[in-house]
Amino acid sequence: AEFFAEDGSELILPFGGLRGRGAVKQDPPVVRDLYLSLEDLFYGCTKKIKISRRVMNEDGQTSTIRDKILTIDVQPGWKQGTRITFEKEGDQGPNVIPADITFVVQEKLHPRFKRDNDNLTYVATIPLGKALIGCVVEVRTLDGRLLNIPINDIVDPKYCKVVPGEGMPLPQDPRRKGDLLIYFNICFPKKLPHDKKMLLKSALLS
Amino acid sequence: AEFFAEDGSELILPFGGLRGRGAVKQDPPVVRDLYLSLEDLFYGCTKKIKISRRVMNEDGQTSTIRDKILTIDVQPGWKQGTRITFEKEGDQGPNVIPADITFVVQEKLHPRFKRDNDNLTYVATIPLGKALIGCVVEVRTLDGRLLNIPINDIVDPKYCKVVPGEGMPLPQDPRRKGDLLIYFNICFPKKLPHDKKMLLKSALLS
Repeated sequence: AEFFAEDGSELILPFGGLRGRGAVKQDPPVVRDLYLSLEDLFYGCTKKIKISRRVMNEDGQTSTIRDKILTIDVQPGWKQGTRITFEKEGDQGPNVIPADITFVVQEKLHPRFKRDNDNLTYVATIPLGKALIGCVVEVRTLDGRLLNIPINDIVDPKYCKVVPGEGMPLPQDPRRKGDLLIYFNICFPKKLPHDKKMLLKSALLS
Repeated sequence: AEFFAEDGSELILPFGGLRGRGAVKQDPPVVRDLYLSLEDLFYGCTKKIKISRRVMNEDGQTSTIRDKILTIDVQPGWKQGTRITFEKEGDQGPNVIPADITFVVQEKLHPRFKRDNDNLTYVATIPLGKALIGCVVEVRTLDGRLLNIPINDIVDPKYCKVVPGEGMPLPQDPRRKGDLLIYFNICFPKKLPHDKKMLLKSALLS
């Protein structure tokens, strides 16, 4: 059997051909990764995967390669490692029970977020001045809204701002969501002239 | 055999007793950790380890438990994982080649330093004001000298100050040393009154 994504690009490598000439037995499951974006896992989606598999002809001796579409209904909040098994969808052959085909959900890297279970983490880069005085952090959510999150605390390198309910949907109830955790990358000045150092001394060391 | 440190405290757990009644064979080596301080590994030292081992009597049939001192000359710069083997110092028994005894160097946690190969790393905790304006970091070395290291750069959370030649001795030439790497834990103020925030704004955001 060979695997292709619906758009025709080859999704996964082919696996074994005709097997087993003796007693009827089942090959071990064929396990393939199914890479999904955080958006796919946020909303849920339907993935159609075309497989090419060897199917026995009616004579019970010869076989033909046929395409088949496997459909996966991705539910909102599915986690990396979720397994979806299609029973006996592997290659057919004489005296062989076709192997099961199992897909294992993997998360694609996201440009803005990392997932941590039901939470999402985001790293905001801010200058040191704003870390001390306060700022508003803008975060574009997975569903495209622009959050404006005021930060009034002093932000040190270990500070984390929790925005409740802006994480991933909970699989058991997708209307509920995990949290958004904002971490900070604080940019220090590269150089400071003497007069500014004196101001900093008054502000921080007196 | 049982193991004791020279001070009488039990160093390591006992291992098997009489073995093998058939053909002459050797048991697998007995492997034990030897925990050493960074000071021991900096200067080198001599470790004496008392073992209690079963020794065959002259009749070739009966055996007695006897103490023996194994001496390890720890060389300056030895690394974690260094193995020292004493051949055939395990329990004697009829038709048995006594096992080898192998010690594997492990580093004890040090209150000030972590070792990173030939380098030592040290974390200096300084207030944010000093990180921006400059400071002198005091470090007590493994051989008891007090280093005063001026820091004139702006220290951000990823900054590292390298002090050449203040690390661990190189095993191939202990007169040469690795480096001391100073990392910084920057303490941010917990709160800032309005007037200090205004000073910081002038210093950092204008």
